[in-house]
Amino acid sequence: MPLPLKQIRAIVGAENLLTTPEELYCYSYDASKMRFIPEGVAFPANASEISELVKLANRERFAVFPRGSGSGMVGACLPRGGGLVIVTNRLNRIIEIDADNMTAVIEPGVITGDFQKAAAEYGLFYPPDPASLPFSSMGGNVAMCAGGPRAVKYGVTRDYLLGLELVLPTGEIVRTGTRTMKGVVGYDITRLMAGSEGTLGIFTRIVLKLIPLPESVRTLTAVFPKLEDAANAVCEILRSRIIPSTMELMDQATIGAVENHLRMGLPTDAEAIILIEVDGPDGVLDGQVERIEQICRKTGASRTDAAKSQADRDRLWKARRGISPALGRIRPGKINEDVTVPRTQIPAFVRAVRALAEKYNLIIVCFGHAGDGNIHTNIMLDRKDADELGRAGEAVEELFRLVLDLGGTLSGEHGIGIAKSPFIEMEVGSEGLRAMWKIKQALDPLNIMNPGKMFVSDRSFLGGSFA
Amino acid sequence: MPLPLKQIRAIVGAENLLTTPEELYCYSYDASKMRFIPEGVAFPANASEISELVKLANRERFAVFPRGSGSGMVGACLPRGGGLVIVTNRLNRIIEIDADNMTAVIEPGVITGDFQKAAAEYGLFYPPDPASLPFSSMGGNVAMCAGGPRAVKYGVTRDYLLGLELVLPTGEIVRTGTRTMKGVVGYDITRLMAGSEGTLGIFTRIVLKLIPLPESVRTLTAVFPKLEDAANAVCEILRSRIIPSTMELMDQATIGAVENHLRMGLPTDAEAIILIEVDGPDGVLDGQVERIEQICRKTGASRTDAAKSQADRDRLWKARRGISPALGRIRPGKINEDVTVPRTQIPAFVRAVRALAEKYNLIIVCFGHAGDGNIHTNIMLDRKDADELGRAGEAVEELFRLVLDLGGTLSGEHGIGIAKSPFIEMEVGSEGLRAMWKIKQALDPLNIMNPGKMFVSDRSFLGGSFA
Repeated sequence: MPLPLKQIRAIVGAENLLTTPEELYCYSYDASKMRFIPEGVAFPANASEISELVKLANRERFAVFPRGSGSGMVGACLPRGGGLVIVTNRLNRIIEIDADNMTAVIEPGVITGDFQKAAAEYGLFYPPDPASLPFSSMGGNVAMCAGGPRAVKYGVTRDYLLGLELVLPTGEIVRTGTRTMKGVVGYDITRLMAGSEGTLGIFTRIVLKLIPLPESVRTLTAVFPKLEDAANAVCEILRSRIIPSTMELMDQATIGAVENHLRMGLPTDAEAIILIEVDGPDGVLDGQVERIEQICRKTGASRTDAAKSQADRDRLWKARRGISPALGRIRPGKINEDVTVPRTQIPAFVRAVRALAEKYNLIIVCFGHAGDGNIHTNIMLDRKDADELGRAGEAVEELFRLVLDLGGTLSGEHGIGIAKSPFIEMEVGSEGLRAMWKIKQALDPLNIMNPGKMFVSDRSFLGGSFA
Repeated sequence: MPLPLKQIRAIVGAENLLTTPEELYCYSYDASKMRFIPEGVAFPANASEISELVKLANRERFAVFPRGSGSGMVGACLPRGGGLVIVTNRLNRIIEIDADNMTAVIEPGVITGDFQKAAAEYGLFYPPDPASLPFSSMGGNVAMCAGGPRAVKYGVTRDYLLGLELVLPTGEIVRTGTRTMKGVVGYDITRLMAGSEGTLGIFTRIVLKLIPLPESVRTLTAVFPKLEDAANAVCEILRSRIIPSTMELMDQATIGAVENHLRMGLPTDAEAIILIEVDGPDGVLDGQVERIEQICRKTGASRTDAAKSQADRDRLWKARRGISPALGRIRPGKINEDVTVPRTQIPAFVRAVRALAEKYNLIIVCFGHAGDGNIHTNIMLDRKDADELGRAGEAVEELFRLVLDLGGTLSGEHGIGIAKSPFIEMEVGSEGLRAMWKIKQALDPLNIMNPGKMFVSDRSFLGGSFA
């Protein structure tokens, strides 16, 4: 059945509804590179228009797909099966930054990086830092429970989420949570919504907790001939009561790829480099850096390098930032899995991945957030090579089993969406998935809000984003 | 219909089922002082026995009431309407404290304080500190999402909860969440369970995040002739990028009550005393204390007092710890409301409470966690005085409206249970409450798990605990 375009236009205005093929094409993909063409794309102005659209969807039985900036990695916002994409980017006001209570009220279309800058003007800090922060929307960040390198010290989006105004799948506008740090009035709908991937509600306001901006930051790197030693160093640093704001790991395959690309003299014989940042009161940071260098050397680092200037910092970050372009030179495509293991399992994980690469004759590189065990595992491939694609598919499933055996999780920060939907049951079990589906059915009895995600099994996407 | 005692005995063993009136009486109350006599009290040994009990309850249609230590403040564990109390205190093992990954796996019957001590032996810290921690159970802490004074810096129970094993209301045993800091695989059932008050599941294992134990603690107090100035000081301290681990406020009525009781020379003409603790690396604390004293004096404190020894600390805490016994001398009973407002609203709140006390001719004292706005508001009364009880009832409803008008919440840490159930809709709205009820029905279609709470309106308990 075609979308009731006339009624949709009556709600949002003709100028806020796209229907031509060229326009629809622009909203058919996200960072996962999957593609599903919608039948219409609406840009409502406010909560009440969204509520009307959702009520109409229930009456007329069409699917709605909430969308922010489209920077998601797993196809969670894509209009699979067709229907109406609802873009929330017109709801883009920072309504309030309350410096005394250290809270903010914003609309979902606010860009994450813009919000961080606005908070910083008040001396306040919104820590979650997904790589997409220059263009990702806060609504999307909440829907996916975005993470980032700083999670080891500061946690993820849910840890800063206090409350929401949202449109339920049946169209009612409700407010959840509080503006205060504490609040235990009824079920925690707020945190249930964090990571619900647009399947349980469309957010129209977001209440967030902020913290004081740290005074200073220091950056250092350490080179480890042995990967185990790097993992030990990560644990030892944390045990010494220093919690770095970032601990980024590059494995040997990553170091090689980056050196190949940048020719900056990286030690390609080393099994690991970690990049560490500490932040906090100026007075304690130099001591912490010294302590971290001692720990790294004691645990087996062949070299440590602490930045003494901004130029130094940029130099240390250069290798880390060079990973993505470097990988593009290995192979035209990759499947990026954001699996996460307890951090002590990182060496076992990386060695098993190396064995997997050998078994399936694939290039697999590991890098990412060592402090929280969130290791981005990239299977390099050429999607046009059917045989390679087939081997990658088998490797992914084996990778997921490995991760679960090590006490980890299939996704640390990208989510399920379409890409990992066939594998969710491996982790949460059939009873667990059934409980989730019961909640979905209870709140969205006609399954009109972002269907075809999380609960649908289709293995063609290999559990990751193609990029 | 009577409980199927024979079948229950077959599951838990005769020695683990109580049925005599004397025994049942012991499980008829909690810290709220309400009283409901159960028909039986079972002490299962493990998850599988709990699962069998819950499945039996669904088949035979009797209610089950999960119970930890019975230290809750709102009657959330009480067998209202009759049925089987399921006590989880035999599941009391600390299964694992993983110092390198800073996680713990425990059973729900572990006592909060015991768990904190066990973690401290590894140099690790479990911060939530409800006043009941010497006897409250961790299962209860998760079910109620317990808070405490340290929440201003460290957050509440949900902020340390990573995963659960639990028995759903239909009897299935599921595992939720992760052992890692990050994890976005499906709906966040784990955090939905935090604060679900035993209505959505019975926890059988709890996975928790730990942090490094702070090196040191410093304690100080500040006396403020004007309440507004005390509230300003709290905000200014936080804005100076110092986050104290505790900021406890006593209002003038509280100061008077404690002085009356202890005769320790408290300044009864002061409108507020705040007790502040900072913790962290030894090197920075003295500077922080000095800075806090400066801020307090600048914002209007007539006096500050920093502890130089443990004896000093004990002296400063004496007044705070003396509050409860002191209140007992004012009036035989009290209704304790743990309302929470944005911290800048504390002066407006306390002044409005004073007006309320005058209007209804009641003694109302305010004290508690100023840093997070969680002000324990105690209406002193004699429950045998019907007139006073009636006035208190009216005052409570007006108090709740006031709190919501100030952007606050009806409960910061005690929860809803029976006591606040008639008032929940004031805060979450009818649509919000309906969404919660849909989730409850989806997971517990026969309403056998802890019925008569949260969704039942009965104003006889005045929204608070009688103590």
